[in-house]
Amino acid sequence: MHWAKILGVAIGAAALLGLGIILGHFAIPKATDPLPSSTSDSQDLDLAILDSVMGQLDASRIRENLRELSKEPHVATSPRDNALVQLLLERWRDTATGLDSAKTYEYTVLLSFPSTEQPNSVEVVGPNGTVFHSFQPFEKNLTGEQAGPDVLQPYAAYAPPGTPKGLLVYANRGSEQDFKDLEAQGINLEGTIALTRYGGVGRGAKAINAAKHGVVGVLVYTDPGDINDGKSLPNETFPNSWGLPPSGVERGSYYEYFGDPLTPYLPAHPSSFRLDLHNISGFPPIPSQPIGFEDAKDLLCHLTGATAPDSWQGALGCQYKLGPGFEPNGRFPADSEVKVSVHNRLELKNSSNVLGIIQGAVEPDRYVIYGNHRDSWVHGAVDPSSGTAVLLEISRVLGTLLKKGTWRPRRSIIFASWGAEEFGLIGSTEFTEEFLSKLQERAVTYINVDISVFSNVTLRAQGTPPVQSVIFSATKEISAPGSSGLSIYDNWIRYTNRSSPVYGVVPSLGTLGAGSDYASFIHFLGITSMDLAYTYDRSKTSARIYPTYHTAFDTFDYVEKFLDPGFSSHQAVARTAGSVLLRLSDSLFLPLNVSDYSETLNSFLQVAQKNLSTELEKQNISLGPLVTAVEKFKMAAAALGQRILTLQESRPDPLQVRMVNDQLMLLERAFLNPRAFPEERYYSHVLWAPNTGSSATFPGLANAYARAQKVNSGPEAWAEVQRQLSIVVMALEGAAATLGPVADL
Amino acid sequence: MHWAKILGVAIGAAALLGLGIILGHFAIPKATDPLPSSTSDSQDLDLAILDSVMGQLDASRIRENLRELSKEPHVATSPRDNALVQLLLERWRDTATGLDSAKTYEYTVLLSFPSTEQPNSVEVVGPNGTVFHSFQPFEKNLTGEQAGPDVLQPYAAYAPPGTPKGLLVYANRGSEQDFKDLEAQGINLEGTIALTRYGGVGRGAKAINAAKHGVVGVLVYTDPGDINDGKSLPNETFPNSWGLPPSGVERGSYYEYFGDPLTPYLPAHPSSFRLDLHNISGFPPIPSQPIGFEDAKDLLCHLTGATAPDSWQGALGCQYKLGPGFEPNGRFPADSEVKVSVHNRLELKNSSNVLGIIQGAVEPDRYVIYGNHRDSWVHGAVDPSSGTAVLLEISRVLGTLLKKGTWRPRRSIIFASWGAEEFGLIGSTEFTEEFLSKLQERAVTYINVDISVFSNVTLRAQGTPPVQSVIFSATKEISAPGSSGLSIYDNWIRYTNRSSPVYGVVPSLGTLGAGSDYASFIHFLGITSMDLAYTYDRSKTSARIYPTYHTAFDTFDYVEKFLDPGFSSHQAVARTAGSVLLRLSDSLFLPLNVSDYSETLNSFLQVAQKNLSTELEKQNISLGPLVTAVEKFKMAAAALGQRILTLQESRPDPLQVRMVNDQLMLLERAFLNPRAFPEERYYSHVLWAPNTGSSATFPGLANAYARAQKVNSGPEAWAEVQRQLSIVVMALEGAAATLGPVADL
Repeated sequence: MHWAKILGVAIGAAALLGLGIILGHFAIPKATDPLPSSTSDSQDLDLAILDSVMGQLDASRIRENLRELSKEPHVATSPRDNALVQLLLERWRDTATGLDSAKTYEYTVLLSFPSTEQPNSVEVVGPNGTVFHSFQPFEKNLTGEQAGPDVLQPYAAYAPPGTPKGLLVYANRGSEQDFKDLEAQGINLEGTIALTRYGGVGRGAKAINAAKHGVVGVLVYTDPGDINDGKSLPNETFPNSWGLPPSGVERGSYYEYFGDPLTPYLPAHPSSFRLDLHNISGFPPIPSQPIGFEDAKDLLCHLTGATAPDSWQGALGCQYKLGPGFEPNGRFPADSEVKVSVHNRLELKNSSNVLGIIQGAVEPDRYVIYGNHRDSWVHGAVDPSSGTAVLLEISRVLGTLLKKGTWRPRRSIIFASWGAEEFGLIGSTEFTEEFLSKLQERAVTYINVDISVFSNVTLRAQGTPPVQSVIFSATKEISAPGSSGLSIYDNWIRYTNRSSPVYGVVPSLGTLGAGSDYASFIHFLGITSMDLAYTYDRSKTSARIYPTYHTAFDTFDYVEKFLDPGFSSHQAVARTAGSVLLRLSDSLFLPLNVSDYSETLNSFLQVAQKNLSTELEKQNISLGPLVTAVEKFKMAAAALGQRILTLQESRPDPLQVRMVNDQLMLLERAFLNPRAFPEERYYSHVLWAPNTGSSATFPGLANAYARAQKVNSGPEAWAEVQRQLSIVVMALEGAAATLGPVADL
Repeated sequence: MHWAKILGVAIGAAALLGLGIILGHFAIPKATDPLPSSTSDSQDLDLAILDSVMGQLDASRIRENLRELSKEPHVATSPRDNALVQLLLERWRDTATGLDSAKTYEYTVLLSFPSTEQPNSVEVVGPNGTVFHSFQPFEKNLTGEQAGPDVLQPYAAYAPPGTPKGLLVYANRGSEQDFKDLEAQGINLEGTIALTRYGGVGRGAKAINAAKHGVVGVLVYTDPGDINDGKSLPNETFPNSWGLPPSGVERGSYYEYFGDPLTPYLPAHPSSFRLDLHNISGFPPIPSQPIGFEDAKDLLCHLTGATAPDSWQGALGCQYKLGPGFEPNGRFPADSEVKVSVHNRLELKNSSNVLGIIQGAVEPDRYVIYGNHRDSWVHGAVDPSSGTAVLLEISRVLGTLLKKGTWRPRRSIIFASWGAEEFGLIGSTEFTEEFLSKLQERAVTYINVDISVFSNVTLRAQGTPPVQSVIFSATKEISAPGSSGLSIYDNWIRYTNRSSPVYGVVPSLGTLGAGSDYASFIHFLGITSMDLAYTYDRSKTSARIYPTYHTAFDTFDYVEKFLDPGFSSHQAVARTAGSVLLRLSDSLFLPLNVSDYSETLNSFLQVAQKNLSTELEKQNISLGPLVTAVEKFKMAAAALGQRILTLQESRPDPLQVRMVNDQLMLLERAFLNPRAFPEERYYSHVLWAPNTGSSATFPGLANAYARAQKVNSGPEAWAEVQRQLSIVVMALEGAAATLGPVADL
């Protein structure tokens, strides 16, 4: 061949070889590369899946779930409660819409029930025992659902049996101060029966406070001023409106702590150590009984004595007096007494949690937990079935994707249906006790949706600061129910907002007390937690809670007619919770913004500086170390945020991602100190333990300061303030250390 | 072209293209592949590096380190202690042989020192105050190193100042029982001075027990029978042999707990909350002073009274009597008393830890920690410098590889030089308090090498069961010092062995008490820990510990002449610790065999069944749940072992490895329960807390059982037995749950 031709062929050959090399290199995946795992290791949130889930969450299915869940009363451990355990198992084991697996976890726990043979009663009796009046032992059967063997008589769970009798006094909300005020009026409380109204302090606290002053029995009623915006007539209340009917009675647990009362810190297995009954603390010390406002009116509007202060007045349509005893020439003879007969019984019962899991594809050892309780007081359409109806719809939609092979989350998702919450968050607490180590090491977040719809106006979210960002991200993408055209976020900000120094005006996130099953997750285990619901326009109602709460009127019809016709608010909560759940389970980087804790710490610090520092300085206690610790935390959190941004821009190694995610996941654990407040059972989180002081600052500091401020407090009380300060400083510095670069000394 | 030619060209072209494709696919790494990280993610122990490290660990350098470290007394916070802080920093910051970084962490802690102006004294005095004899306040200057301003007078750290005076009694080892026995002999202990010998119970316990019986001062001496195999003459002791000279006195901390006494559970920062001095518990309540056996002989061999029981006799060459007071017509007038003058002072001092880190290449957030204390009582050649000499040699060899770029460990290695260990493990405890969260989340193991060579005969290893396998693997590959040709393992098994149901005859691993800086790691934080040393042939000596322990005779010459001429045992410990360290820091799968806990649990269970079950059954307490829990643990541990084997045979994904390693690392944490023994400060590990009962079983159970067995114990004592049983069951079941497949419910 001619040299030019040879050259041409050679060039062509080289070009072909080169093309081949290029093709071989770029077009064919290497078999020896760990590609399947590499691919899955970088699995991230799939927006198409998220959209699909949002689209499939169906209001009418939630409605059907609710109808089924609330069709019969299902108090904890009742036959219907156990039937619902089976319903959950069936749903979660369904081959087309279920999860990877589901099972029950049973605990043997101490519950309290009214006697079926001998109902509790409240009577007005004469000195010789003549019964002048017996109050209604049950709620009126207004819709056909308020009667029958499964409708538990209204009662105060864990109130001891007994039949105290005495002159009646009115004690407002039954706070410590209320009883002191009565005594300051010259009223001798010894041997009296105290009529109190719900609100202000916890249920059990009313009896505990009362007993300290010699009161022998407590009645608790719901004032129409507190629940019905003053309305009290039958035609103004359910079934004619959402209002509480005159005979409606709020049941509830009067136990002051949470978890099974007999097995604190131990799972309530049959063989577990149990306290002797006389060693239990936190039960009401004297017989107590809740009544409806119709009955309360008969009592309260006929009292004698001084007129109660303005802040003690309510909406029963009369002037409340303090007693003791009835007015002369009134409805009852002036010397008649009130007799409270309580026949509650303590019973050891087997209560089940149901747990279902979707195993994570990449990090099966990281758990996003989503739960609600299952047990109600009566039908419990709102509480808790509105939450469970949403839970079942979310698990159906995700289960369907799973069973079709369309999707598997990066991390494991655990769905939970807790037992015996109404008696004191028992099922969830026993679960955290049983699996303490596993959960502390691996739980990313706990999402609680108990009552999903209090009302259909706006989102309400509670949680620790790191969940704010993921809730904001989710709600910005979901339409609010109704025709506003706003996102849930934009609707929410209209009702509840605050001005953040970092973000400007944002919706405000509430804090977590111990109102539902998140309590042991956040307070005992230090697991980042949240609670989601739809709720009221607070400018339209001052109701303490939705009016039929814990009554036999909390039924499916109540929800459908008054709370959420069309179930679009249920759907909105399902979408919000579902989106938050998916973002947490599927995002490569955990969407927990730990820097959002800095605002809380700043605010706690500023309050301490403003309210406490003058007196602290007098006691030679400096807030300086706290200022430094807060600063260290803020800098560490901000720097971690920056590191994550940088990592996100690179192609991060799976272990690099895991290391950062571990820092995010475990931050909340660094705030736990089981030795900080040993007297506050389970409360170990140094930022969110109960604050009974008057300053919204670090609770240990606030409480110790409040005690030290009391008359006659000694140097030990100020030493305790210093100790609590050191505990907070240690926690903040420890937390900052966990956020710093992991290989820094 | 001819068609055949065209075909030929086409075939050639196709072949070239194909070749190119093949080349491109196989010969060129993909730039977009995460290859660097994939490669490093699977980084495993490199046996060539391990060999190289073993070869480089140099006996003569250890010798030089020891000479430097022990050339002057360096009690905690002394100028020389601070100079050694600088020495460590220099070594660890050396650009050719140092670590990635090193820094100091200072704590302000409460120490106790003798007065330099007013030495403590022990005198025999007459009733009118005449001093008949003053005992030697210092040790004899036998080698020129026992005098000088930096040699602290022998004293009992934290013993309170005071000058008690009384008749002398001999109280054996000062146990609770010893004082009861004296009283049973009709001896009135009120107002006496008790002479006791070291051993049996803790130093401080002697004074605490004594004070309960009215004793007003305590002397403590070291009996030649307990330390010198009976030898007591100057020519039989140092500098003529390894024996304790007659004037030698063991110093030591008499504090009963550990950590800074003023800041329990808080890091001792300047601003931290501090207890009032009168709120400290655990200090000896009465003046105490240690003395040498030469002086003790003058006292003990001249006592009057009944002859002490055989088990109370020692090797002072006379018959020990009980007192009170001296014999008639003896060395001292019979009515003379002993006066103990203690002038110790408590001082707040700044003590430093030095920490140095080699950052992990793959998992920088996993820490293998290797530490020893730095402070001594006098020169401290053995205690602690023999350990620090080894530490510095290991860090030099690893630092050199690091600085050359030859090697970087998979996980981070943290080297630690703790301050103020002698006063109660203070530096290490403050460190665990300050970095509690970070360490609990990330520490793989803590390796302690304090006294590295007690004697040059055999390895001694203590630790929790998961470290057994890595110590065995390491020691099988290293030659024992001397000419036996045996491995360290094969030599070790000749001296200390047991028959394992799983492995047959193996060397026995000791358990971890609170004798050195591992205490807060294992007991407070639940971090898998070990302690390594070379030690005696127990058939050749009954010495309680090496004879010059805590005396001014613990010098470089002592080590070189008597403990380890040639430093080959130091080298053996350096190789063992270095190999264990590398295996833990570099192995892809953590070499912690959690199944080895099963033997311990079996053994604890069997002892409980054998010794306790009869009485427990009478009390209606069943060991059944414990049997089940142990079984669950064993099955879960075995199954995890199988899963790891299977994973090792595949090409495991980095996250799969990480998940399994997290299970291994965190197992020990599952045995922690900070609420199990609140009265035992820091002790939270339910398997290794102090067991003061008589059965080698679960300590909480053993202790509660022992208390319940006492006369007059009530049902509450048996309830506590049941509670402790439930605590163990909960821990074991929780631990088993952490070992199960991570996505199992």
